[in-house]
Amino acid sequence: MSLAAGRPYLAIPGPSVMPDAVLQAMHQPAPNIYEGDIVTMVQAMVPDLRRVAMTEGKVAIYISNGHGAWEASLANVVSPGEKVLVCVTGRFGNGWAEMAEGLGIEAVRLDFGTKTGIDAARLEEALRADTGHSYKAVLFSHVDTASSLRNDPRPLRAALDAAGHPALLMADCIASMACEEFHMDAWGVDIAVTGSQKGLMVPPGLAFIFVNRRAEEARRAMPRVSRYWDWTPRLDPEFFYQFFGGTAPTHHLFGLRAALDLLHDEGIEHVWKRHQTLARTIWAACEAWGSDNGAMRLNVADPALRSHAVTALGLGERNGSALRQWVARNAGVTLGIGLGMATEEDPKGEGFFRIGHMGHVNAHMVLGMLGTLEAGMRAIGVHHGPGGLEAAARVVASG
Amino acid sequence: MSLAAGRPYLAIPGPSVMPDAVLQAMHQPAPNIYEGDIVTMVQAMVPDLRRVAMTEGKVAIYISNGHGAWEASLANVVSPGEKVLVCVTGRFGNGWAEMAEGLGIEAVRLDFGTKTGIDAARLEEALRADTGHSYKAVLFSHVDTASSLRNDPRPLRAALDAAGHPALLMADCIASMACEEFHMDAWGVDIAVTGSQKGLMVPPGLAFIFVNRRAEEARRAMPRVSRYWDWTPRLDPEFFYQFFGGTAPTHHLFGLRAALDLLHDEGIEHVWKRHQTLARTIWAACEAWGSDNGAMRLNVADPALRSHAVTALGLGERNGSALRQWVARNAGVTLGIGLGMATEEDPKGEGFFRIGHMGHVNAHMVLGMLGTLEAGMRAIGVHHGPGGLEAAARVVASG
Amino acid sequence: MSLAAGRPYLAIPGPSVMPDAVLQAMHQPAPNIYEGDIVTMVQAMVPDLRRVAMTEGKVAIYISNGHGAWEASLANVVSPGEKVLVCVTGRFGNGWAEMAEGLGIEAVRLDFGTKTGIDAARLEEALRADTGHSYKAVLFSHVDTASSLRNDPRPLRAALDAAGHPALLMADCIASMACEEFHMDAWGVDIAVTGSQKGLMVPPGLAFIFVNRRAEEARRAMPRVSRYWDWTPRLDPEFFYQFFGGTAPTHHLFGLRAALDLLHDEGIEHVWKRHQTLARTIWAACEAWGSDNGAMRLNVADPALRSHAVTALGLGERNGSALRQWVARNAGVTLGIGLGMATEEDPKGEGFFRIGHMGHVNAHMVLGMLGTLEAGMRAIGVHHGPGGLEAAARVVASG
Amino acid sequence: MSLAAGRPYLAIPGPSVMPDAVLQAMHQPAPNIYEGDIVTMVQAMVPDLRRVAMTEGKVAIYISNGHGAWEASLANVVSPGEKVLVCVTGRFGNGWAEMAEGLGIEAVRLDFGTKTGIDAARLEEALRADTGHSYKAVLFSHVDTASSLRNDPRPLRAALDAAGHPALLMADCIASMACEEFHMDAWGVDIAVTGSQKGLMVPPGLAFIFVNRRAEEARRAMPRVSRYWDWTPRLDPEFFYQFFGGTAPTHHLFGLRAALDLLHDEGIEHVWKRHQTLARTIWAACEAWGSDNGAMRLNVADPALRSHAVTALGLGERNGSALRQWVARNAGVTLGIGLGMATEEDPKGEGFFRIGHMGHVNAHMVLGMLGTLEAGMRAIGVHHGPGGLEAAARVVASG
Repeated sequence: MSLAAGRPYLAIPGPSVMPDAVLQAMHQPAPNIYEGDIVTMVQAMVPDLRRVAMTEGKVAIYISNGHGAWEASLANVVSPGEKVLVCVTGRFGNGWAEMAEGLGIEAVRLDFGTKTGIDAARLEEALRADTGHSYKAVLFSHVDTASSLRNDPRPLRAALDAAGHPALLMADCIASMACEEFHMDAWGVDIAVTGSQKGLMVPPGLAFIFVNRRAEEARRAMPRVSRYWDWTPRLDPEFFYQFFGGTAPTHHLFGLRAALDLLHDEGIEHVWKRHQTLARTIWAACEAWGSDNGAMRLNVADPALRSHAVTALGLGERNGSALRQWVARNAGVTLGIGLGMATEEDPKGEGFFRIGHMGHVNAHMVLGMLGTLEAGMRAIGVHHGPGGLEAAARVVASG
Repeated sequence: MSLAAGRPYLAIPGPSVMPDAVLQAMHQPAPNIYEGDIVTMVQAMVPDLRRVAMTEGKVAIYISNGHGAWEASLANVVSPGEKVLVCVTGRFGNGWAEMAEGLGIEAVRLDFGTKTGIDAARLEEALRADTGHSYKAVLFSHVDTASSLRNDPRPLRAALDAAGHPALLMADCIASMACEEFHMDAWGVDIAVTGSQKGLMVPPGLAFIFVNRRAEEARRAMPRVSRYWDWTPRLDPEFFYQFFGGTAPTHHLFGLRAALDLLHDEGIEHVWKRHQTLARTIWAACEAWGSDNGAMRLNVADPALRSHAVTALGLGERNGSALRQWVARNAGVTLGIGLGMATEEDPKGEGFFRIGHMGHVNAHMVLGMLGTLEAGMRAIGVHHGPGGLEAAARVVASG
Repeated sequence: MSLAAGRPYLAIPGPSVMPDAVLQAMHQPAPNIYEGDIVTMVQAMVPDLRRVAMTEGKVAIYISNGHGAWEASLANVVSPGEKVLVCVTGRFGNGWAEMAEGLGIEAVRLDFGTKTGIDAARLEEALRADTGHSYKAVLFSHVDTASSLRNDPRPLRAALDAAGHPALLMADCIASMACEEFHMDAWGVDIAVTGSQKGLMVPPGLAFIFVNRRAEEARRAMPRVSRYWDWTPRLDPEFFYQFFGGTAPTHHLFGLRAALDLLHDEGIEHVWKRHQTLARTIWAACEAWGSDNGAMRLNVADPALRSHAVTALGLGERNGSALRQWVARNAGVTLGIGLGMATEEDPKGEGFFRIGHMGHVNAHMVLGMLGTLEAGMRAIGVHHGPGGLEAAARVVASG
Repeated sequence: MSLAAGRPYLAIPGPSVMPDAVLQAMHQPAPNIYEGDIVTMVQAMVPDLRRVAMTEGKVAIYISNGHGAWEASLANVVSPGEKVLVCVTGRFGNGWAEMAEGLGIEAVRLDFGTKTGIDAARLEEALRADTGHSYKAVLFSHVDTASSLRNDPRPLRAALDAAGHPALLMADCIASMACEEFHMDAWGVDIAVTGSQKGLMVPPGLAFIFVNRRAEEARRAMPRVSRYWDWTPRLDPEFFYQFFGGTAPTHHLFGLRAALDLLHDEGIEHVWKRHQTLARTIWAACEAWGSDNGAMRLNVADPALRSHAVTALGLGERNGSALRQWVARNAGVTLGIGLGMATEEDPKGEGFFRIGHMGHVNAHMVLGMLGTLEAGMRAIGVHHGPGGLEAAARVVASG
């Protein structure tokens, strides 16, 4: 007998839970793509997208996943043979660096490990050392989906300014956009990239690049950009198809329209605050479980550095995988695998797992997921400190 | 700021949560109703329905809600002017009696209150007193959705047998079918009625009457039955439209097919056991919350008499309503109102509420709902004993 | 090889083609049925329903099919043992009479055949002969779905008035409501019944009874009406559940809301006119095909008596069935079977078929269906006159 | 009054009409993308995709539109600075050439106009002249969506062979795949690219590149390919995410699975034959309308060169646009605009339009669309020859 038969809850760090309104909006006939409603719909979405990133800049929409957005953003401002400086705080920082290398760009890595986030002083030092300003851009993950570290863009901007370095500041916001507080313009980010399938609550398949004037200038200085990645016509399309470099992704656009309505009806600041409170709910439970010699450990010790959208954590031995399997089979919850967490003792990273709490997530879903973790730890025999669920409920109660 | 934005959870005692597979199955063009796939689909559903009620008898499908099924069941076996004996254990027992009266039937009530269920000895006494066998049927609620009392049919059958009374035993299984263990044939129930929107997980709009040979005989003895309610052609249709006394409820049938697949793929015994375990999960939390002078009280004190599909409970003063509102606004959970629970001190029954845990419900949903109750009680200042959520998780862990 | 793979077109006389907006509206989670959005939604639907019937009267909504509406309407105003006069112009007139008989009502039939509609003079004569005013009601089909005859209610009202007979005029508008011009109040109809699955474009499962003051008075004079059929609480509900005599048919209501929006956005007069023009389109083709010794014959010779929602027609021999099968297999169109058209030479009525053109139907669908008829007649070797498709296009062109 | 209210028919040359099964399959919760059902589903789809292209080669799936597939295919086998030879027979041939130029590739065009298709002799001549074998590839459109020309790949392969030229033969099958007969291996095509939104009946957002061994060898000889476009891991993925160079396009994959089932259940040869017959149906009507000094002209005079998936045609003056507007407003049909058809007398190409008849299209839809064209021509006063609709029905009748 299993207690899993019921509505399953997908608590992986993306794709996130799709709202019914989004799936319904996508369930409709193909539209005309040459004229009519879809044209006006897309034009009206552009300002709504920009309000999510808090920018007066422009946005290019791509049919691609996040890896495509990584490649596209670089392809517009860095030429083969040029250099970028990549702040690595987990697997996804490395991923962006590899995409750069695939374009023939030299990616110089500053590796900050997976526990403590970017040290802005070290970044500033590296920038000062680059006296010839060979770095065209500084890349970083706002949130690294693997480590669940959250890097504040402000100290990075300050480091660039202090060093007087003209490199563009490029933020990977794939796991953070519409989850974490973010003010692209106020915080001095030049390029921000994201995807549809996390905070934006739309199936994977769309990506977005937000650019400011400095980024546009950098594009204009490029000798050549491939037509699919070139953001120029996408930012300022004369014809509708130019938004998408060809055929429009009709059904994703229907879904995105519904998702933007949900976000702005709630209020983007409220969305951020909801994510923050639910993250604190999870932390409260996990810290209680880790007390009293409990096995549970959050990957990021400092709450100020923790993502509000994803949480990486460890249980020791193979218990991360065992717990994931137990809750999937017995309780209807799917957790994310640990990523980039292998150690010598745990070569497959099976002691780790991740909780996605991004997008369409409320107190019921989070408290239920935590309840199944407690049940699962008990069932598979993992020692855990007391009071985790009460602690979580206390955070929800205080709102 | 609210923590409710996310997938809402409807925890009322019906309609229950609709599985995605059911809603998807209903999202399709209208079919031909004169021939083709729908005809064979319905024919194949009949045995699957009978397996839910555990009967070798027949089933009549009605386009109606549960009130319609109440009326239909009586209309087939009791004539105006005749008498039935109704065992009342909550509002819905009275409801069926009123439907009888609307048909001109005299409904004699045995009222057992809303706390302790049917006293079979008292029933037997009443039957023995009916020396002329004027009662054509004994009516009872397998589960009364208002009080959440569960009445075991076996002692009732025994009472009839002991009294040597030929009345039909008619069970209202609207809130229990496909949730609670039920063996129509083995337990001696002659007529069982249910609806689509609870354990069967299909939107409201279909009702089902299961009948055995004794019930069919009673029907044959009737002078007249209205054509819409007459189950005769529905039980043994020569033409497809006779299944439904006219046009088939096409989209509900698509949904029902999907729901029956879910039930039988899981296994109906497993479905019962899942409901039982999840009910015990809820009780464990509520009993802990009621300890230490906590305000919470389950309506039914004896676990053996409690439904596994719905739980009625009280918090005192207006706190039932306050808690319902808090979890709806802040946590994404909709609880049921207390029904038939008004007292002198609480004329609107606002101290009470109900939890629906019927149908498509798993451990995640139940533990999450309990988590929001704890958060809500804390937020609105209701005193509650400690350890409720841990106690719940413990039940889930032990499966 | 078949040319049927593509979107199928269901051209049977109900259920009709479901608009995407209706199916989408039905694809959503179960709602709370005790309070909230659904309550206000239903309250706002009532005037929109009344505008479809063009009445200042009231409407009762039933979870049932049309047969249920037939029974319900009679159950409210005619007692067992009383008499009604039924004007029969096809199978469905007889059907209503049989439902009356099932209620113990004496149904006196005036049979007008299936070709020429009701002779109001004969009706008046019958009413005059009923000097004791024993007929409580005169029943007729606005459109008989089997014969596709359309009976104008005005001469019938005039006959009642001329005869000074107080019987209620009861119209079966199941196949005509929201298709054919209809003014319940202005035309003197006392009770009009319909279903959800034809002009209202919602899956089968809801029925509606519109009543005026005379009908309400007749109800008040009844000694007893069964609670499920009693329209009294449904017309003026104090509590939400009374609209439906119990649990609300949630998903049908979502669909109905969407359908009413479609109807009133188009404008009900425009809806009637569209049906009329498309019917004339079909007639033009069929008359051309019947010319030049062609085999095709419309069942109703006089255009003034033809339905604008359904067309019954014959091809001779078994060619009705053969044509139906050919277009289903080869062209993606499902036609309706002939109903009540059996003759001695054609005991199964296989020379006949019906075209449904009710509800969500446009010029493309109708012209395409006619195109497949011409292809099919040619393929199976049925002689047909020339110019049918051009004649049809001409009607569409002139709008 | 309009006759458009009903199910609209989108007859543009892509996106095509989405089958209900595809939209339903896409209407489901986000799945786990690390393990489980989606992994096995995708692995099983690969052979089904290859069967559509009739190849023993491999397939790379991209999240992109057709323009992305154009870029991706070139990026894998041609380096910046190298040359390709492009056979242009309409706007989309030019489009591929421009994508090449965006990658820094020199695109030498052989322009064959928009009426008569590729002259293989001229191609052979050009290849013989390239004695240094500087052309890395010969690009052509199997069907050009703008002109509706269909180019047989076989003479092109023969020209390459006759010239002894080692260039890869690259086919743009975006508008033809799963519509037109195509045997990638047997016909000697090395690389074939297509998108999801035409013959594959899935919303825009996926693209596919089929490659044979020669193409794989050419890839291996490339000094560098960007990681998003590199097909190497996509063809032979070690991990699931490598199929898609990152996050999987979950919902499109659900839709694609349903679409492949439809195609292979019908049989790909039957699908081709259906498209051919429906194309002939359209031509028959249009040729009749063009007779007797009718205004209508198919863009491609030779039936052997016409696409079976899209038809470009002209009415003279601004009548193409006028007709498009009339049928959209009055009949529920959306036609495609003329593309690349501007002339001096008609600078906006308003005399032209296109009919899409690709994918989920049956006889009913095509005959209905033709019916609305005849009605529209009559309504807007365009002279047309007689007998178009009968001619069309005749083709359908003969199957």
